[in-house]
Amino acid sequence: MTTPLHVVILAGGKGTRMYSKQPKVLHQIGGKPMLEHVIDCAQSLSPEKLIVIYGHGGESVKDAVANPALEWVKQEPQLGTGHAMQCAAPNLTSAGYSLVLYGDVPLLDKQTLQKMLAKVADEQSSVVLLTQFLANPTGYGRIVRDDAGAVTAIVEHKDASEVQLAINEINTGILLLPNSHVHTWLSKLTNNNAQGEYYLTDLIGMAVHDGLVVQTVQPMNEWETLGVNNKIQLAELERHYQSQNALSLMTKGVMLLDPARIDIRGNLTCGQDVVIDVNCVFEGSVILGDDVEIGPNCYLSNCQIAAGTKIAAFSHIDGAEVGQGAKIGPYARLRPGAKLADEVHIGNFVEIKKSQVGLGSKVNHLSYIGDALVGSGVNIGAGTITCNYDGVNKSLTEIGDGAFVGSGSMLVAPVVIGAGSTIGAGSTITKPAPAEQLTVARAKQVSLSNWQRPVKKTS
Amino acid sequence: MTTPLHVVILAGGKGTRMYSKQPKVLHQIGGKPMLEHVIDCAQSLSPEKLIVIYGHGGESVKDAVANPALEWVKQEPQLGTGHAMQCAAPNLTSAGYSLVLYGDVPLLDKQTLQKMLAKVADEQSSVVLLTQFLANPTGYGRIVRDDAGAVTAIVEHKDASEVQLAINEINTGILLLPNSHVHTWLSKLTNNNAQGEYYLTDLIGMAVHDGLVVQTVQPMNEWETLGVNNKIQLAELERHYQSQNALSLMTKGVMLLDPARIDIRGNLTCGQDVVIDVNCVFEGSVILGDDVEIGPNCYLSNCQIAAGTKIAAFSHIDGAEVGQGAKIGPYARLRPGAKLADEVHIGNFVEIKKSQVGLGSKVNHLSYIGDALVGSGVNIGAGTITCNYDGVNKSLTEIGDGAFVGSGSMLVAPVVIGAGSTIGAGSTITKPAPAEQLTVARAKQVSLSNWQRPVKKTS
Amino acid sequence: MTTPLHVVILAGGKGTRMYSKQPKVLHQIGGKPMLEHVIDCAQSLSPEKLIVIYGHGGESVKDAVANPALEWVKQEPQLGTGHAMQCAAPNLTSAGYSLVLYGDVPLLDKQTLQKMLAKVADEQSSVVLLTQFLANPTGYGRIVRDDAGAVTAIVEHKDASEVQLAINEINTGILLLPNSHVHTWLSKLTNNNAQGEYYLTDLIGMAVHDGLVVQTVQPMNEWETLGVNNKIQLAELERHYQSQNALSLMTKGVMLLDPARIDIRGNLTCGQDVVIDVNCVFEGSVILGDDVEIGPNCYLSNCQIAAGTKIAAFSHIDGAEVGQGAKIGPYARLRPGAKLADEVHIGNFVEIKKSQVGLGSKVNHLSYIGDALVGSGVNIGAGTITCNYDGVNKSLTEIGDGAFVGSGSMLVAPVVIGAGSTIGAGSTITKPAPAEQLTVARAKQVSLSNWQRPVKKTS
Repeated sequence: MTTPLHVVILAGGKGTRMYSKQPKVLHQIGGKPMLEHVIDCAQSLSPEKLIVIYGHGGESVKDAVANPALEWVKQEPQLGTGHAMQCAAPNLTSAGYSLVLYGDVPLLDKQTLQKMLAKVADEQSSVVLLTQFLANPTGYGRIVRDDAGAVTAIVEHKDASEVQLAINEINTGILLLPNSHVHTWLSKLTNNNAQGEYYLTDLIGMAVHDGLVVQTVQPMNEWETLGVNNKIQLAELERHYQSQNALSLMTKGVMLLDPARIDIRGNLTCGQDVVIDVNCVFEGSVILGDDVEIGPNCYLSNCQIAAGTKIAAFSHIDGAEVGQGAKIGPYARLRPGAKLADEVHIGNFVEIKKSQVGLGSKVNHLSYIGDALVGSGVNIGAGTITCNYDGVNKSLTEIGDGAFVGSGSMLVAPVVIGAGSTIGAGSTITKPAPAEQLTVARAKQVSLSNWQRPVKKTS
Repeated sequence: MTTPLHVVILAGGKGTRMYSKQPKVLHQIGGKPMLEHVIDCAQSLSPEKLIVIYGHGGESVKDAVANPALEWVKQEPQLGTGHAMQCAAPNLTSAGYSLVLYGDVPLLDKQTLQKMLAKVADEQSSVVLLTQFLANPTGYGRIVRDDAGAVTAIVEHKDASEVQLAINEINTGILLLPNSHVHTWLSKLTNNNAQGEYYLTDLIGMAVHDGLVVQTVQPMNEWETLGVNNKIQLAELERHYQSQNALSLMTKGVMLLDPARIDIRGNLTCGQDVVIDVNCVFEGSVILGDDVEIGPNCYLSNCQIAAGTKIAAFSHIDGAEVGQGAKIGPYARLRPGAKLADEVHIGNFVEIKKSQVGLGSKVNHLSYIGDALVGSGVNIGAGTITCNYDGVNKSLTEIGDGAFVGSGSMLVAPVVIGAGSTIGAGSTITKPAPAEQLTVARAKQVSLSNWQRPVKKTS
Repeated sequence: MTTPLHVVILAGGKGTRMYSKQPKVLHQIGGKPMLEHVIDCAQSLSPEKLIVIYGHGGESVKDAVANPALEWVKQEPQLGTGHAMQCAAPNLTSAGYSLVLYGDVPLLDKQTLQKMLAKVADEQSSVVLLTQFLANPTGYGRIVRDDAGAVTAIVEHKDASEVQLAINEINTGILLLPNSHVHTWLSKLTNNNAQGEYYLTDLIGMAVHDGLVVQTVQPMNEWETLGVNNKIQLAELERHYQSQNALSLMTKGVMLLDPARIDIRGNLTCGQDVVIDVNCVFEGSVILGDDVEIGPNCYLSNCQIAAGTKIAAFSHIDGAEVGQGAKIGPYARLRPGAKLADEVHIGNFVEIKKSQVGLGSKVNHLSYIGDALVGSGVNIGAGTITCNYDGVNKSLTEIGDGAFVGSGSMLVAPVVIGAGSTIGAGSTITKPAPAEQLTVARAKQVSLSNWQRPVKKTS
């Protein structure tokens, strides 16, 4: 019986070798703190209690995670993994099991933990240990077994005999403990060792001593149990994580031009026949409809792109919605609040912010559209700017259906450009432009026949 | 005698695990459908007949490839590889050889096939099988040989004995069959198997039974015979293909800053001392002259860049021609029909479309030049726009040699800017600007001494 | 005693397989000629003499390196490595040691050479050879040892017996020779071999013959002794070099989102908690303060970015200084002479050249600011351009503190925009704009009620 299941996440370490002001467990993998990866995985098991032992970084860890389902226990000072569990002990009941996880071991798979939980369904009151077989076990605690194959001890690398050093099954530190024994065991822990720390590993010996079976499970992937102590390891796990993301997308049918050059920091949901070119970055929640194509070197964050839309190279999209069959980019910048209807065209060096653009409208070149309501069938010429800010207030620009705004127009908001109107190129529009009429604001063109070009100044 | 050589390409599969509306063989490697890679390789052998067996995706496969040299044979329903060849049989003569290839095995090298063809030059009426030695042969059909080393059978993985499972020579499915026997063999095929399919592999047993020698050849590279059944495998072959492209360029002397970060989807031809920085994408036919340097993160498609020209980072070039010693970018967008003479400078956030730009002319900042003829020695100021579109028609802007167009000029086409003329900054030009004169269209500057700035509105 | 230490760098080779007009040793790794890598490493040993043997490429090699600490010796014609040392011989004294390095073996680590030098501290008048153990030694000269383990000879691959071919310790060519013997040995070299060349390797046999001990040292990393003969090898070493750069940064605490996608060509210095996203390129001297974040796909060259500043995607920064807490990009271009104060915001499609921008000022969209002094608290509207160039002269634009420049303003330099002034959108400003006043230059807006839109021309 694993019920009730308690999960205890040890997250108190400082991470000196991260050389960071930030507590170690808040460093991110895939745009999410490592600790949250562990919490999310733990919550997927629906534990009765989810206890986080924190210490270094103090309240900043609690504040960063802000998950009401958690019980926080402060460990201060930090005297080892056994001590951390001792801090947790008052929160653990005497029934069920406690699963011990680590805030700096972020990529454990739910299925691996489920395999551990399944072990105790048959064998009451056993301990389940997650072990791993490594080609090079140097530095790790070795799993010592008797002739019958039963685990008898964990021997640390530095204490291991020649024979024990040859063992390539190692301790990952992740274990499932019967609450019926854990309180007693924790109370017996001592710190009679060179570091003067209390080691959770010592519980294995106690379990064997008390006649419990120590069962073992191995993770499906070697990188699941890797921990992070420095930025090199952080980057390695980031790559494992991204590699898994890429495999998952491809398995579902997404075409990735280079699976080693896609970064997903959040959730990317793709329809059928989506194609993603090299070197794209996705953050937050991104939803791509069927047949969407994302060109090389694009950045997409918290956006929805509907079916059939093509996003060309170097586009930067954040907080925007794009309809079907649209053409965006290259070099298009869509900012939060940009809502583009179907078949809209947004071209190069164009920025759209907090604006709606209607069906089939086009903003193809060098423009800034902010705080605007643009109707359908509108053509916005190159170099058009909605002058939406007077230094203190933002104002609205309304452009009616079918309007043609000539190049280089300055639309000084608040202003209304009527439906079907035409704005002459180079006009600064400060008053309403009537529907269906041509509106211009243009100085007279004159030529000076006797004009001399400037000459080079001598300095 | 391989003459006449018939090539039969099996391209009828659906590719369920591609999760795509598109037939499997139309999925692309290096920007070209897999089937076309196979066809191109086959055509390089100058076969008398080139037969494609199609099925899933139907006419869309024929339409997509559109190669008049092909004979298309429809296989419907699809009852296995043997059945596919049965469909092809009426198109095969009784002389020469038939080479069987697969539309989803796209990266076979011509030289590998030539080695197969060479085998039958000596040994009349033999079968030639392309086999491969794999470290892990799991899942593949094993090549069974007698004590003298002669091939006696192909045993499928699931049917293999313990001894046979240890064989690491596997069947790639690619084979060369003597037409003198192939009709008889195909007529004898049965589908007495679990899948109820006709297997081409069964012909090997018939050949051995009929006393023919089964010769074997191995490909030069392991990835040549890899097939594509899902998007993961598609991406793997894409990377093998790109890796080969990169090696080929470097062998010829091109300097690639990172061979793992270049994508060539078409033909990239380079002169001497070309340098290509990281993360560039090339599509279609791209020709780079001697000493051309391409900065990081550039996209080039169907363009020619003459000797000594530098393309800076983030440039996007499609359908353009650039002369010698030009400086392009960063963030330059050259669109189809852009023809730039020698020593032209195109700077950041500049778009050139369907325009000629003469010797040494400069468009350095934030401009759109479309449908224009720009002379030599012209300086186009920042923010200049050719207003080439009135909503229905595109019109021409002509700018004479040595003209100086001030910043923020709107040139309303059709319009002529005379040679040696100067356009004052901020002018909207709607009428011809005479040569050598200063032309301006500018409102009077006034200041309001009693003006109050707007105040923050309370909502 | 290694004193005096002479270092001789062999740099005369042509590098035919580089297919380049440039001498081989001038090809770059990490943006620096290979020869300079070797020179820098040699200089870190503080040798008394640093002699470079040059030949192919002639004076261009000397000119490119231009280091006054070097003694240049021309080798012409090139008759082998032994001949190169013969050319150097007149420059070598008879005391101390000569360390032989190669201009096309660029990544040797100083510590490896120090290990070589340390060897002769104990053992007077020995030869020290840098050897390497390779899994596949094919093609390399093998280190032959006697039963006691003493080196007795180097046997070239083609001359090696079956037993010798099995030796996997190979000669790297890098060696430390006692000057007391080197003159004699060099005078005895012959070219009685197939190539008719003088081989430096022959000195090992002479040393053994003369009763000297041949000591051996191995490099810490296998790639240290790799040489470059073609662009493939150049790219491989570039990757090893960049990989080391990345490891070094991460070890110090820099967070790299992908260590395989960062390129550093020069010196990148980072404060604490710096984060660098994927695919960034750094050139020259770049200094990033604490908490600086660099977004994906950025290019930074010779710049300083102060603490807390965020650089968003696709930014291109060269020769600029940016203050603390600034926000730059995406798509920001900072050119040489851009000096931005703290908390400045530079947005998309904005180019800043040779200009100062004061505390907290903002240039958020589609602007060109060149040759300008911008005060603090200034807001520059979208599409603003400093018209700094009249075709021959560059002029200054001064914008006072707190000015608000409306969108689409053309500021025709030389011009002064007063402190606290407001420029109306769409104005071309050619005269001083008084402080605290509103200045506009704007044509009257008119509408034509009977206007007909153009109709499609039939061609």
